[in-house]
Amino acid sequence: LGIDPQKTTFWVQSDVPQVLELYWILSKFTPTGLLERAHSYKDKVAKGITANHALFSYPVLMAADILLLDIQKVPVGKDQIQHVEMTRDIAMKFNNAYGEIFTLPEHVVNDNVATIPGIDGQKMSKSYDNAIDIFMETEKKLQKRCNKIISSSTPLGEPLEHEGCNIYNLASLFLDENRKVELQNRYKTGEEGYGHFKQYLKELIWSEFAEARERREAYMKNPDMVRDILGDGAKKMRKIADEKMKIVREAVGIL
Amino acid sequence: LGIDPQKTTFWVQSDVPQVLELYWILSKFTPTGLLERAHSYKDKVAKGITANHALFSYPVLMAADILLLDIQKVPVGKDQIQHVEMTRDIAMKFNNAYGEIFTLPEHVVNDNVATIPGIDGQKMSKSYDNAIDIFMETEKKLQKRCNKIISSSTPLGEPLEHEGCNIYNLASLFLDENRKVELQNRYKTGEEGYGHFKQYLKELIWSEFAEARERREAYMKNPDMVRDILGDGAKKMRKIADEKMKIVREAVGIL
Repeated sequence: LGIDPQKTTFWVQSDVPQVLELYWILSKFTPTGLLERAHSYKDKVAKGITANHALFSYPVLMAADILLLDIQKVPVGKDQIQHVEMTRDIAMKFNNAYGEIFTLPEHVVNDNVATIPGIDGQKMSKSYDNAIDIFMETEKKLQKRCNKIISSSTPLGEPLEHEGCNIYNLASLFLDENRKVELQNRYKTGEEGYGHFKQYLKELIWSEFAEARERREAYMKNPDMVRDILGDGAKKMRKIADEKMKIVREAVGIL
Repeated sequence: LGIDPQKTTFWVQSDVPQVLELYWILSKFTPTGLLERAHSYKDKVAKGITANHALFSYPVLMAADILLLDIQKVPVGKDQIQHVEMTRDIAMKFNNAYGEIFTLPEHVVNDNVATIPGIDGQKMSKSYDNAIDIFMETEKKLQKRCNKIISSSTPLGEPLEHEGCNIYNLASLFLDENRKVELQNRYKTGEEGYGHFKQYLKELIWSEFAEARERREAYMKNPDMVRDILGDGAKKMRKIADEKMKIVREAVGIL
């Protein structure tokens, strides 16, 4: 679980000022009509979220993020495909004017991503407020959250149906086939109620993420370690960005 | 003539990356509706100039230029008043959210600015292609340009009318009252034609800007001197900008 800072470079966008420099240069190659057609902008405006300029021009910033590093493949959710396409449009306009400066990125969508159900059975999402935090500080708190999972009202003593049960669906994410069958059998006997299965789910979550939780706590206790990782990443990125921006500046005629 | 680099700081905008950083932060406080109402954007779109994002968002960049340095008074032409007002709007929105961080700038319009006529009698403007370059390399080239000034077709030997004469209007910019009357009298005698007055104007321009031309040539021959001035200016500005951005970053919560 997690992304290894030894293998992957982490940095804070605002620590790499070249992103904004490239963003501004790309703005010259971004028709406002392109931005007006962006789904996420149109959706937000339709939902009544105040349309500020940062929201409107965000696709240009994303394009700068991608093009600055000559990224070839961009892993995205389906709702973000358009942003990669807009990045290609902007890069092509620039390349048409100044030669093959930017790599045209491609989007990569993983169709096999499982949808995790939240405590209400809907897709788990922070914005739906139905998520279970895998990094809960104590087992007690995690148990409390698991207890909020919506289950049917079958009374204790009767056999329970595992299919369509939110608790079962969540638990099965952590179980191999044998253990899934075991759990299904426990549902059938009628000897246990949802409370037991909620406790079982809590135990599964708590032990599954034990090692990750420890690593996370180590970072939390040592913010300097995080700052160092981000600082090193920013340094590395600024160097790559500087090299790219030399080429871009020369192309557009900035001394 | 000119602005003294000893008294005034010159710098190249792209040498001060804090401008773009502030620009991006201000974008959050700029409704897109504000930008859509900008005269200069509307005019350019109406004239069929492709509406790219840089043009659309240019008022936000200007606001960053002004607010970064806590400028109190901004000298502008009438067509630029709206930009200073937009800067105030953006600054007020930011200040409402985070306290009195930015100075609200005021525009200063000098109504006494003389309109200089071009060779066709219209307002002199590079975009009308009717300007006389005061830094022409040779007197001959300057004379050629002066010869293009449109004058009436009164034949040589007849008295000429100085009023409404483009040559006279340009020459009078360099003359005190006595010398203006002298020139008016030369027009009246009919002994001289427009060719003479065009030569006289050339002499006036050539001698008026002699000292400035020399200074300019010194800069042109020594680009390192210009680079040093701009480099020193950028250094000074980055320092001021850094101090301001520390306050802004802290206000909005960027570490």
